[in-house]
Amino acid sequence: MADQAKPKKQLHLAAFMRPVSLHSGAWRYPGAYPDANFNLSHLKSFIQKLEAAKFDAFFMADHLAVLNMPVEALKRSHTVTSFEPFTLLSALSQVTTHIGLAATASTTYDEPYHVARRFASLDHLSGGRAAWNIVTTGNPETALNFSLDEHVEHAERYKRAREFYDVVTGLWDSFADDAFMRDQETGVFFDPGRLHTLNHKGENFKVKGPLNIARPVQGWPVIVQAGQSEPGKQLAAETAEAVFCAPRDLESAKALYADIKGRVEAAGRKREHLKLLPAVFIVVGDTVEDAKEKRLKVDSLVHHETAIASLSVALGQDASKFDPDSPLPDLDILDTNASKTGRAGVIKLAKEEWLTVRQLAGRYGGYSGLSFVGTPETIADEMATWLEEEAADGFTVVSPFLPEGLDAITDKLVPELQRRGLFRKEYKGTTLREHLGLPRPKNRFFE
Amino acid sequence: MADQAKPKKQLHLAAFMRPVSLHSGAWRYPGAYPDANFNLSHLKSFIQKLEAAKFDAFFMADHLAVLNMPVEALKRSHTVTSFEPFTLLSALSQVTTHIGLAATASTTYDEPYHVARRFASLDHLSGGRAAWNIVTTGNPETALNFSLDEHVEHAERYKRAREFYDVVTGLWDSFADDAFMRDQETGVFFDPGRLHTLNHKGENFKVKGPLNIARPVQGWPVIVQAGQSEPGKQLAAETAEAVFCAPRDLESAKALYADIKGRVEAAGRKREHLKLLPAVFIVVGDTVEDAKEKRLKVDSLVHHETAIASLSVALGQDASKFDPDSPLPDLDILDTNASKTGRAGVIKLAKEEWLTVRQLAGRYGGYSGLSFVGTPETIADEMATWLEEEAADGFTVVSPFLPEGLDAITDKLVPELQRRGLFRKEYKGTTLREHLGLPRPKNRFFE
Repeated sequence: MADQAKPKKQLHLAAFMRPVSLHSGAWRYPGAYPDANFNLSHLKSFIQKLEAAKFDAFFMADHLAVLNMPVEALKRSHTVTSFEPFTLLSALSQVTTHIGLAATASTTYDEPYHVARRFASLDHLSGGRAAWNIVTTGNPETALNFSLDEHVEHAERYKRAREFYDVVTGLWDSFADDAFMRDQETGVFFDPGRLHTLNHKGENFKVKGPLNIARPVQGWPVIVQAGQSEPGKQLAAETAEAVFCAPRDLESAKALYADIKGRVEAAGRKREHLKLLPAVFIVVGDTVEDAKEKRLKVDSLVHHETAIASLSVALGQDASKFDPDSPLPDLDILDTNASKTGRAGVIKLAKEEWLTVRQLAGRYGGYSGLSFVGTPETIADEMATWLEEEAADGFTVVSPFLPEGLDAITDKLVPELQRRGLFRKEYKGTTLREHLGLPRPKNRFFE
Repeated sequence: MADQAKPKKQLHLAAFMRPVSLHSGAWRYPGAYPDANFNLSHLKSFIQKLEAAKFDAFFMADHLAVLNMPVEALKRSHTVTSFEPFTLLSALSQVTTHIGLAATASTTYDEPYHVARRFASLDHLSGGRAAWNIVTTGNPETALNFSLDEHVEHAERYKRAREFYDVVTGLWDSFADDAFMRDQETGVFFDPGRLHTLNHKGENFKVKGPLNIARPVQGWPVIVQAGQSEPGKQLAAETAEAVFCAPRDLESAKALYADIKGRVEAAGRKREHLKLLPAVFIVVGDTVEDAKEKRLKVDSLVHHETAIASLSVALGQDASKFDPDSPLPDLDILDTNASKTGRAGVIKLAKEEWLTVRQLAGRYGGYSGLSFVGTPETIADEMATWLEEEAADGFTVVSPFLPEGLDAITDKLVPELQRRGLFRKEYKGTTLREHLGLPRPKNRFFE
């Protein structure tokens, strides 16, 4: 049958990591490594597990400031400190061979020459596995660490980001792929006719070039984006090859997928040259109940004060006045400062999962984004649906706690996906572009 | 005897590296790896040899631009391209265990928050082996890659450097060494009373802090400096713990040593807390003649046009008019634009070594700084003299060509130094500070 001859669509999987998980209670989970922020051996074991499971990429979360929160919450947060991503991923490149290495670099608080150079270098060091997550940096605290009095305004950040991208990719194209003949006999190291000096002069940057690094193994490292604002989506459509988005549910993901893929086509690109990988928090259990219990457990490890503060933000009113061990009272009649959608989401969640105020607070203080919680089979079903219904090309997987939660994903969920033919059993290539099925960009200055 | 009880002074050795050597003809030397700029396996073998020889540190040369030279010279230069040092050294940290890792970061074209963060991260990743070579960046081409129209003026660069240093070291002290209790039971990750927010407001920078990284393993990574201008020497005396200087000979090195050590004391520091490590180009042969021949050989591999241009600069006049295969004519009666000292140096060198114009040009086009060329015994004699006469605390060793020239240093010269008790046979500690005999800096904000 013709249907059988057609290769089945497959998922792409990236891991969205913080050394001790993105969940703020995870460092207290039984068996967790609370010292992982500065214990490289744990990070080596995590990335090696992900590579053994054939993940496309390992993405390390990043911030250019200590997150701004009240000291009572801050002192309980493992986010205050971590390795810097370039140094970390370069080190991890030496203990892995295939998995992609994605790092964030800010277009607001860095220089295109530096960024072009570091990603090119990581791409060379890793044999073509680097990816640049373009961020404009949303955290206003960052400005204060970079000699500014206030954060750069949103639209301005996105204009600067677009030009920053042009400069960086132009610098990557400084040398033709065949520029270096290194002829020991004649003494000619490279062909100057295969070197392009960028001479960029724009609104935000003047960068002469050329970059002092040979063209990256992948041509350009893979371009990643996460923004979901209007300018964020437009920047992604024009430049990104993978998008780590954060839809709330299947329906909003389908709308986002159609929106972004449409913009990709409108920008003159092929739909399949941008992979939409929604972030999803995954808890695997032996039964659905077991998985739900694990989740309640990790949520319960968020300190109640911190948790209730997060819930109050989500509700737009002080949640500490409610009985923590009762269900959320009917709020429809109360005034609120929160957006209707946000507040409705909280109420829906509380009802669907029969959560007490305490449990709901743990959810908002822990990780409140999209989640798949169940058995390998139920989660594989959900993933297949998302792929089939064009809500996703794969996922950016958030482990609920480490190492146990990650082990369950790599050792239980991934084999189920592989059994169904939804995920690779072996890497076919060696570069991240090959894993993601992305073309190697042509050099804009040379054939 | 009391003399025997006193521990003998020992040399410190750092390697000053470019992937295919600092000598511009070295990539053509028999057995050289011209692809080493992007072949990590060669760099791994170099650093592992240096570590087996118990070197203190591996220092990677760096530039923030393609070096400015005429295209005919540029096309013959392997300096156009290389790994970026942070990514490179982070990768190499995973294939070594003891050797120090020194990288350059510019105080003119980077941000203190970024620099503090990357060095702290490299220090954590490597178990306390990072060193920061503070440079103000002398190459005017760099400005054009960082949205400036012209290079920042010299005195201004040094004022900025001094403040940059204060901010970076202040950020490294953001957390007390014992700030992190990570108590899973109580849920307290760190003690906010052991966190200091810098709130730096200076002439050049406003940096709030704190840094989002725990205090480095070494307290602060080792501070390195190379400048020899007046403000350079002063900055070194106030801040540096190792100085990669470039004196021309023993006498000028002694003067520089006395000058800098005096300034160190005047700045209220201990003399021995700054190690002076002059850069020296070392060619080891089976005989002195053999070593000299090797040097002539590598010098001869610099293309004559490039070489003669370098000689012309050194002489202050066009050297292409001289017969390349005759000795340098008597120049005392000729007009020259070169400094008298520089020109006298060329003439002295030509006479001492009986060099033809072609050979002299190869020297200036290749590497014309301080050199020790001879057998393991004669070079060890020279090193002992420099140590004894307080011209150096050790050396920053430049390999003439790789791998052969490096192998001769690690396999022949180092054992001779060890036999004489001038160099360690085993590492005593694990951090670069321990190798260099430097104290761990106290946190300025916490006991």
